[in-house]
Amino acid sequence: MIYTIKTKRPQEFIDVTGMISDAVSKSSVQNGIAAIFVPHTTAGITINENADPNVVRDILNSLNKTYPVEGDYMHSEGNSHAHIKASLMGSSCMVLIRDGSLVLGTWQGIYFCEFDGPRNRKLFVKIIKD
Amino acid sequence: MIYTIKTKRPQEFIDVTGMISDAVSKSSVQNGIAAIFVPHTTAGITINENADPNVVRDILNSLNKTYPVEGDYMHSEGNSHAHIKASLMGSSCMVLIRDGSLVLGTWQGIYFCEFDGPRNRKLFVKIIKD
Amino acid sequence: MIYTIKTKRPQEFIDVTGMISDAVSKSSVQNGIAAIFVPHTTAGITINENADPNVVRDILNSLNKTYPVEGDYMHSEGNSHAHIKASLMGSSCMVLIRDGSLVLGTWQGIYFCEFDGPRNRKLFVKIIKD
Repeated sequence: MIYTIKTKRPQEFIDVTGMISDAVSKSSVQNGIAAIFVPHTTAGITINENADPNVVRDILNSLNKTYPVEGDYMHSEGNSHAHIKASLMGSSCMVLIRDGSLVLGTWQGIYFCEFDGPRNRKLFVKIIKD
Repeated sequence: MIYTIKTKRPQEFIDVTGMISDAVSKSSVQNGIAAIFVPHTTAGITINENADPNVVRDILNSLNKTYPVEGDYMHSEGNSHAHIKASLMGSSCMVLIRDGSLVLGTWQGIYFCEFDGPRNRKLFVKIIKD
Repeated sequence: MIYTIKTKRPQEFIDVTGMISDAVSKSSVQNGIAAIFVPHTTAGITINENADPNVVRDILNSLNKTYPVEGDYMHSEGNSHAHIKASLMGSSCMVLIRDGSLVLGTWQGIYFCEFDGPRNRKLFVKIIKD
């Protein structure tokens, strides 16, 4: 399944847990894994806390301290920091499916990580049956 | 399969290779992948050297230099550093299975990464047949 | 499938997209996922831009600024920096397969990340049918 995401800011984490749950429901798969893939090189995917929005803000701020937007980079497009962050968070992740539902911890949300927005983005989800 | 892990220190890497091997054995799957998932937001999973324990100590120390426990964080629980490290190591990984065994490199161990312990933790393993 | 890679420099990113495509073709699988695994602890795998080679140079340079080759490490082999980078990039990733081909974004390449070369390395690929 292919989902579209319209990001609004240069850098932001967008909770896509509902999107992945939707893909699981539509597949009718009861047990297996959801393989999630970001087809971009300046965006990534991660799982982290969904309760206090300051958590993902702290993650973004910390990444920006270590890999600043303006830095001593060779790539001329000015978004090297975003490429680095994309590789650190990763392009793919997977979540287990049990009894037709995603198995996540209480505080876990799945986040699309925009590092070079705003842009129109895509997210691929493949449900693999056990 | 669900495994429980009792961590003993604020931050530590615990070798869970035996746990994952156990899940493979119990599944009787000969060829496929082991999908490993951490249902927490202040812990992660990684694969690294299992011979010299100084390697995982160096990884932890280096992460702590870049993302210190006490920092300029907004999240009021005081464990933002742990959330950041969890996303950097990742919540999921996978290992191939061949002839009923995990296929790991000579020096590879699978590590549960505790960043905000000590706590009672869980680890999910799903074996997917090829 | 097992592929061999001969790296030539202490640190470099090698585009292995063709290798993974080859594994997909040989499997004859039309829909599923390619599970990619690096059986080493000083090398990793990541997906990033395949157009401007300065992008992967910037990633390497940035990682080296944060985790320098010569640092205050305990592990006596002198390659702790490489172990840290391997965990940050990760040992495994996956790419979706549709209609017998890898589904990658326009600018995405799959990179084997050498952090302690030059060495003879291996790369494992398992194709899982949907």
